[in-house]
Amino acid sequence: MSACIFCRIIKGEIPSLKLFESDKTLAFLDIGPLSKGHALVIPKFHGAKLADIPDDQLSEILPTLKKLVTATGATDYNILQNNGAIAHQEVHHIPKPNEIEGLGITWNSTPTDMPKLKALCERIKANM
Amino acid sequence: MSACIFCRIIKGEIPSLKLFESDKTLAFLDIGPLSKGHALVIPKFHGAKLADIPDDQLSEILPTLKKLVTATGATDYNILQNNGAIAHQEVHHIPKPNEIEGLGITWNSTPTDMPKLKALCERIKANM
Repeated sequence: MSACIFCRIIKGEIPSLKLFESDKTLAFLDIGPLSKGHALVIPKFHGAKLADIPDDQLSEILPTLKKLVTATGATDYNILQNNGAIAHQEVHHIPKPNEIEGLGITWNSTPTDMPKLKALCERIKANM
Repeated sequence: MSACIFCRIIKGEIPSLKLFESDKTLAFLDIGPLSKGHALVIPKFHGAKLADIPDDQLSEILPTLKKLVTATGATDYNILQNNGAIAHQEVHHIPKPNEIEGLGITWNSTPTDMPKLKALCERIKANM
């Protein structure tokens, strides 16, 4: 746990450009920004992936992001959260000022296969 | 409002592969998936961007995604939310089964400019 960079930032062992803090959430600027205003919002609960974070910590993340969006004045922006090979569930707020700066996305969608999708839908629903 | 595709899906005017529904949230499979299990989670409140959605609707989105992640059994996955030129705030749950399938990301970070970042941090905080 003490090796987790986000835990160390929360404890103040590593300095951060703090934007907002509550009992459950910390928001700070990314020091290698994709665009001006690129920030991270993390839950204070240490967990490997989103599915490991308690609901009451998750529920604060998007309202915190909304505060941040309003404060930065960004009109177009991407919110991204990656799972796999990271500790803590950071959520990125990345303003998209133009075509070049900000987040680049490759969107290789697959053709619609309705029977396959319907079967998958039933399988997932059965697990919920 | 009646022209909004998400409002029409919520009303059932357009069919969807529904995975989960509550008073505030609807989750359904994307019919042009980036990977198997690619789903959308939307608030029922109609708004142009994340910043337009009430906090009580936002707070349900990530716990719903968590349910979905657990049900799909995906271990690695991306969560993406785009703002600009869309209606309703869909949040994508995109399993990342391998290097090729799923979400491709271009991450052109800029060098750390600490004095500039510190000044920006203060400006954003002053607005929060």
